[in-house]
Amino acid sequence: MLVALLTDFGLADTYVGVMHAIIAQLAPGVPVVDLTHAIPPQDVTAAAWHLAVAAPYLGSDAVVCAVVDPGVGTTRRAIAVQIGSHAFVAPDNGLLTRVLARGPVGAAVVLDDPAAWLDRAELPVSGTFHGRDIFAPVAARLAHGMPLRDLGRLIDPASLVRLPLAVPTRLGDRVTAHVVHIDHFGNVITDLGPEFTAAVFGTSLVNARLGRHAITKWAATFGQGPAGEPFWYPDSSGYAAIASQNGSAAARLGVHVGDVIILTLPKVTP
Amino acid sequence: MLVALLTDFGLADTYVGVMHAIIAQLAPGVPVVDLTHAIPPQDVTAAAWHLAVAAPYLGSDAVVCAVVDPGVGTTRRAIAVQIGSHAFVAPDNGLLTRVLARGPVGAAVVLDDPAAWLDRAELPVSGTFHGRDIFAPVAARLAHGMPLRDLGRLIDPASLVRLPLAVPTRLGDRVTAHVVHIDHFGNVITDLGPEFTAAVFGTSLVNARLGRHAITKWAATFGQGPAGEPFWYPDSSGYAAIASQNGSAAARLGVHVGDVIILTLPKVTP
Amino acid sequence: MLVALLTDFGLADTYVGVMHAIIAQLAPGVPVVDLTHAIPPQDVTAAAWHLAVAAPYLGSDAVVCAVVDPGVGTTRRAIAVQIGSHAFVAPDNGLLTRVLARGPVGAAVVLDDPAAWLDRAELPVSGTFHGRDIFAPVAARLAHGMPLRDLGRLIDPASLVRLPLAVPTRLGDRVTAHVVHIDHFGNVITDLGPEFTAAVFGTSLVNARLGRHAITKWAATFGQGPAGEPFWYPDSSGYAAIASQNGSAAARLGVHVGDVIILTLPKVTP
Repeated sequence: MLVALLTDFGLADTYVGVMHAIIAQLAPGVPVVDLTHAIPPQDVTAAAWHLAVAAPYLGSDAVVCAVVDPGVGTTRRAIAVQIGSHAFVAPDNGLLTRVLARGPVGAAVVLDDPAAWLDRAELPVSGTFHGRDIFAPVAARLAHGMPLRDLGRLIDPASLVRLPLAVPTRLGDRVTAHVVHIDHFGNVITDLGPEFTAAVFGTSLVNARLGRHAITKWAATFGQGPAGEPFWYPDSSGYAAIASQNGSAAARLGVHVGDVIILTLPKVTP
Repeated sequence: MLVALLTDFGLADTYVGVMHAIIAQLAPGVPVVDLTHAIPPQDVTAAAWHLAVAAPYLGSDAVVCAVVDPGVGTTRRAIAVQIGSHAFVAPDNGLLTRVLARGPVGAAVVLDDPAAWLDRAELPVSGTFHGRDIFAPVAARLAHGMPLRDLGRLIDPASLVRLPLAVPTRLGDRVTAHVVHIDHFGNVITDLGPEFTAAVFGTSLVNARLGRHAITKWAATFGQGPAGEPFWYPDSSGYAAIASQNGSAAARLGVHVGDVIILTLPKVTP
Repeated sequence: MLVALLTDFGLADTYVGVMHAIIAQLAPGVPVVDLTHAIPPQDVTAAAWHLAVAAPYLGSDAVVCAVVDPGVGTTRRAIAVQIGSHAFVAPDNGLLTRVLARGPVGAAVVLDDPAAWLDRAELPVSGTFHGRDIFAPVAARLAHGMPLRDLGRLIDPASLVRLPLAVPTRLGDRVTAHVVHIDHFGNVITDLGPEFTAAVFGTSLVNARLGRHAITKWAATFGQGPAGEPFWYPDSSGYAAIASQNGSAAARLGVHVGDVIILTLPKVTP
C-alpha cells in the first residue's frame, strides 16, 4: 500500500509539500512517493503517458493521486476509479485515458461528498487548488481504508473523459508512429509498443524517418548502441526509443513531443 | 506529527538529502515533508511568505525546519519558537516574520546547547551548514519529544528579528499593493489578503494597474477566467492573484516580485 | 537504518518515483532519502564525489543505492559492497572510488542472482533501467535484512573499478589542486581536504590563482567573508572552497569543474 503523486505543480512552490503534509495526517504510516511533479503545465496528454508507464510498478492496492487540472474551478468532475488493483484519484479530463485502456475498470465515483475532502472549517475549499483541498485528502482516505464507494456518487465508467490519442497506424509497408516523450537524458520515446517493436525490429534493419533524419541502427540495450549516431533501442517499458551515446538524441535530431515517425517495413519475399 | 523542511538549498547537492538522513535517524517514524527547497538563494523575504502560506496545512504539533541563512557563521542567533501548535526552528533573521504575526507566540529559545545538535565527535560543527549540524538535529529532537525549553536558553519573543515587510496601504480611493510571489504556473500573487479582496472585488469591476498594464477582469476561480487576457482571481490562500489562461501571466505582463500594484476603488455614491 | 538514493535520473521522469515505489514494497517501514538525482547525466566522477561527502551522515547500517550507469546493458558488473557500516549497491564503473578509498572495505558481491532482482514474471528485466529492475530491489532487500552474500557471487574487492582521480599535488612551495564541484549557491569546492587546508591556510595569507583570478582572502565561515570579493572558506565537509557574498562565486570567476588551482605557499624563514 502506498500513495503515488503525479502533478504539474513543480517543486518551486509549497503546493506538493502541502499535499504530502495532508496525506501524512490523514493516512499515517502510508508511504507517499512522488512519480513526478514536472509534467509540463496543463499537459494532460503527457501526464496520461507517464501514469501508464509508472503504474505497473506501484504494487497492489496503490492509490494514485494525479492532478493536472486546467479546468479546476469549472464543471469538470473530480473522480476516483478502480483500475485493476489500483485506485486513481484525478480530475475527469482524460488524465486516465491510457490506464483506463489497460483496465480492467471497476467502480467509478464522482467526488461530490465534501465529507471526504479536507476538513477545515476555517478555510473553505478553494477554487484553484483541488490537489490540496480534494484530491490529496481523498487519496489519503482511500489509502487509510475508506471504501471508494463512500467518496461520492457512482458513475458509469464509460462516461469518463478519454483523450483522442494518436496511435501508431500501418498502411501496407508503411507505419506511422509518434514521439510521446523526451526524457531527462534526451531519449526520444515513441508510441510503438512491445508487440509492435518485436514484429518490426526483431530481425531486420529499420528504415525510419523522423523529419529529415533517418535512424536505421538498432541495439538491444542502450549500452550496446553505436557511438557515432542515434539508434533505436527498446526503452525500459518495451517501447521503441531513440538514443545517442553522445548526449541528447532529441537535441541532436531536433525532435519534439508529437512529431511523426515514418517507418518503412522491409519487403518480405515469399 | 511531522517535520516540514523549507530551504534555499536546491536539490542538486546532497544538502537536503543529508538533512533527511539525520532526521530519519533522530526521529524514527516521523514523516518528513519538503515544503520547498527552491527559495531563491538567501531570499529570506520569499521564504517568510512561503512559510505563512503552507503553515495552516501542516496539522497540529508539526515541527517546521526553515533554513535560509545568509548569516550562517556570524553572530545571528539560531532559534526555536512555539507559534500556535507548531514549533519553528530557524535562523533568527526574519524568516519567521509572517508566522510570528499570525501567532499566538509561545516560548522562544536560542539554540545554544550543543547537546541538541548533531552528535559527531569526529566531525565538528561546521561554520557553513547549520541546516545539517544544528537545525535538522534540533527539529528531529523536537519531533521525537524533546521539550522546546531543553534546546537552549529562553529568550523574549519580542527580541526576534522581524523583516520590515511592505503591506498594502489605502489612501482615499487608491490602494497600493505588492507582488509577493510568482508561482510555477506564472500566476502573480499579491499581498492583498482575504478580507481586503472581499471588500474591493466583491461586487464591482476592478481598476488595477501593474506597470503599463491594466487588469480589470475578475473570476471566482482560475478555470472561469476569460481566455484572452490576464484576470484577477482569489488564489488558493485567498489572496488576490493574476492569472492567464494562455500560459504565464507573469511573463505576459513582465512582472517581478516586489512590483507595485495600484488599485483605484470605484466611487461609491451615498 | 535507511536507504539513500543517488542517481543522474533527474526528477522530470517517473524513474526515481518508481524506484521509491519498489523500495516501499520490498522494505516496508524503511525510510528512503534522496541524496540527489541531479548528477550531470553519466557523470560518474561527480557522483563519486557526492557519495563521499554525504556518506558520513547516513548513520549506521545505511544502504546506499547509487545509479549513474552509462554502461547499462553492457558487460559492466552490478555490485554490492560493504564499506564501513554501509552497504553500497551500484554499477561497477568507479562510482564508489572515493568511498572505497575511505574504507574499511568488507565483502563485495556481483549481483548475478535474479532472485534478488525485481520479481515480475510479466515484465522481463530491461536492458536500460537497472535502477528499477536490479539496484532498487537489491537495496530494498538488503535494508529488509537479506545478507549481502545472498545477493550473488563473492568477488575480490580489489577487482572493483576505480576512477583515476586527480589529487592535489605539491612541488616545493607550489600546490596544484582542482575544482571538484560547484554547488547550488555557486560556491566553488576543491579537492584540498581538511588536513591540507589546516596546513596551508591556518595562519598565513593565501596566494592562489584560478585562471586569471587571484583569490587571497580567507574567512573561517561563509558569513564572515569580505563583501567585495570572492574568498576562501572551509566548506561543510572541511574542504577549501571559494564563495562570494554577492551571488555565485563560480559565475563571477568563470570557473568550471575540473579547473586547476595553483597555490603558492608562503616562504617560511627558518
